[in-house]
Amino acid sequence: MIQAANAARLQAAGGVRTLAFDSGTPLQLSSGQTLSPLTIAFETYGALNQDRSNAVLVCHALTGDQFVASPNPITGRPAWWPRIVGPGRPIDTNRFYVICPNILGGCMGTTGPASAAPDGQPYGLRFPMITVADMVRAQAMLVEALGIESLFLAIGGSIGGMQALQWASAYPKRVFACASIATAARHSAQNIAFYEVGRQAIMADPEWKGGEYLAQNTRPTKGLAVARMAAHITYLSDTALRAKFDRALQGREKVSFGFDADFQVESYLRHQGQSFVDRFDANSYLYITRAVDYFDLAADFGGTLANAFQGGATRHCVFAFSSDWHYPPEENRAIVRALIAAGAEASFVEVETDKGHDAFLLEEPTFESALTGFIDSAATARGLALPGKLI
Amino acid sequence: MIQAANAARLQAAGGVRTLAFDSGTPLQLSSGQTLSPLTIAFETYGALNQDRSNAVLVCHALTGDQFVASPNPITGRPAWWPRIVGPGRPIDTNRFYVICPNILGGCMGTTGPASAAPDGQPYGLRFPMITVADMVRAQAMLVEALGIESLFLAIGGSIGGMQALQWASAYPKRVFACASIATAARHSAQNIAFYEVGRQAIMADPEWKGGEYLAQNTRPTKGLAVARMAAHITYLSDTALRAKFDRALQGREKVSFGFDADFQVESYLRHQGQSFVDRFDANSYLYITRAVDYFDLAADFGGTLANAFQGGATRHCVFAFSSDWHYPPEENRAIVRALIAAGAEASFVEVETDKGHDAFLLEEPTFESALTGFIDSAATARGLALPGKLI
Repeated sequence: MIQAANAARLQAAGGVRTLAFDSGTPLQLSSGQTLSPLTIAFETYGALNQDRSNAVLVCHALTGDQFVASPNPITGRPAWWPRIVGPGRPIDTNRFYVICPNILGGCMGTTGPASAAPDGQPYGLRFPMITVADMVRAQAMLVEALGIESLFLAIGGSIGGMQALQWASAYPKRVFACASIATAARHSAQNIAFYEVGRQAIMADPEWKGGEYLAQNTRPTKGLAVARMAAHITYLSDTALRAKFDRALQGREKVSFGFDADFQVESYLRHQGQSFVDRFDANSYLYITRAVDYFDLAADFGGTLANAFQGGATRHCVFAFSSDWHYPPEENRAIVRALIAAGAEASFVEVETDKGHDAFLLEEPTFESALTGFIDSAATARGLALPGKLI
Repeated sequence: MIQAANAARLQAAGGVRTLAFDSGTPLQLSSGQTLSPLTIAFETYGALNQDRSNAVLVCHALTGDQFVASPNPITGRPAWWPRIVGPGRPIDTNRFYVICPNILGGCMGTTGPASAAPDGQPYGLRFPMITVADMVRAQAMLVEALGIESLFLAIGGSIGGMQALQWASAYPKRVFACASIATAARHSAQNIAFYEVGRQAIMADPEWKGGEYLAQNTRPTKGLAVARMAAHITYLSDTALRAKFDRALQGREKVSFGFDADFQVESYLRHQGQSFVDRFDANSYLYITRAVDYFDLAADFGGTLANAFQGGATRHCVFAFSSDWHYPPEENRAIVRALIAAGAEASFVEVETDKGHDAFLLEEPTFESALTGFIDSAATARGLALPGKLI
């Protein structure tokens, strides 16, 4: 049983475990503001060893949650990374203590724009603007409160990969190994453009109510669905869409000569939009996408990415997928070049696949075996070759 | 001065020239329905020669209009293809008689969903569903009414290229040469997906009013702007966005920590959305995108694209742009392969450029010189080596 440090209060309600930090330990934000009180929802799997040296922090992506290896008790959705985290999996929960926090600004228990502000009303747009660095600073408070001085591994895909890289940059002594997957050290103009389309779709929905929809007991579901649909296209490769749908019709032999979802790809996309609005908060979407727009790891280091990793002892593995056009392989190679320039130990695995950005969530044996190899070799270097004695 | 055939009535008002077909000549639609009355707005440049053999039909793209080589008198916008059409240009108006009709379903004078139905009210969603074949059938009525038996050239970029290909397929004896640019013989799943996002954005706007916004004196400007923003991203390459904007801020030195358009790319995209709604009808956007979704030239020919061109004598040149991910070079190569399999005379020019899909509208000397070469050699073959005697 994990004990939290004095400053924080462990709670569990409705299947969601949280750690609450009171006003004595406010979260310092990149904007200069502070956030307090702060609640971080998280899930754990496996057990911490006696040395407290086997902790793995899994950072989830834009619309993920803390339920990386178990069903989400709120939404009923299955674990989102069951191929990677679990007994006998690359991140073996018989061997590692896995922590997965809900992202700062999220909507699955961690403080975000849908949370109650100190006045008892939802924050809405009064929620302070956050950055990826802020997300990681909050995670560091959680990890410290759980009594873990140094993570064995920080890992994440997509914007989870940004968080893992930010960990290695901001806390080089507290991260033994870092696996960043299908990500980038800076959000590109094209990606900012796609996120902006999503935000404009949400804010164009009159039910958004200037961000105060929760107080007015409504939700901008149509705008959020459009935002999700636009983003979802970027997660799949053109090839995958051709292979999966091509121009196949949905439940009909001829086109309807109308605006129904004639094509399977339309039906699929509409479903993605509709099912998303049931589980996600629109303002969370605005804040998290904005934080990612702002992500440019080199910016605080004179524009030279290598400087962000200078002097760190973290060993890295960077994974890219050949057909990922959201965070293309070249973005990942740029990270590797910077790591090598910084003298860091860095491997690079580019997986040949037609599955696009979402490949890290799907069945990709090459990715899984390469990840297993990286983790096992790092575990050996950390002296974790055999499962440690559990406390 | 061109005289229209008896069935049609030439008119001009407010700078827009139209040809009106009454109920005696209804437009037969692919859906089985008919459309009548039908008005086609068009612009012409240059003069028809005595042989009536120098007519060039320019087919515009999704959001274009008939003002290919002169300012639009309604919107005040400049000619949209001034580098290609004009005196001394690749399509030399000293030599050719250029006809550019507003697309069927459009909103610049040709009958579309914003036009008055026979009952005097705007069609709205009562407008019949149209296809690219229908657009071309309407153009063929125009060309015939203008007394032109055979076009020297049908040309267009993007969905204008689809129309040019449809001309060559449907009326092989009435098109001497065909230039299809940055297009496809079938709309891909990814492109259907992007169009569907745009349509959902429009239909999610409560001001859309189930398509009856004109009768209710309102317009779904927010939804239409989002649709335009999403589509606009696909017209530019990732490389072009990096070169043009990268992560540059808009009129500020630091990010605002807010939802303003901090980045130039956001500001640019918002401007694209805003300026679009002033000049385009939302229902036109729905109908035209749907027509393009439905475009699959091989489908009516047993699924074999070559069959769509079998026996035709039209000479083709297909142009592709290396960084075009909306209609990638491979889609254009597929057209060339089909043309060759059909025994057609076909050239293929892939232009190396980082400008993306919109390259055909921008300064691309390689494209312009290749197009000039194709047109000149076809003109020679047509006996148009010297400007004919003008009537």
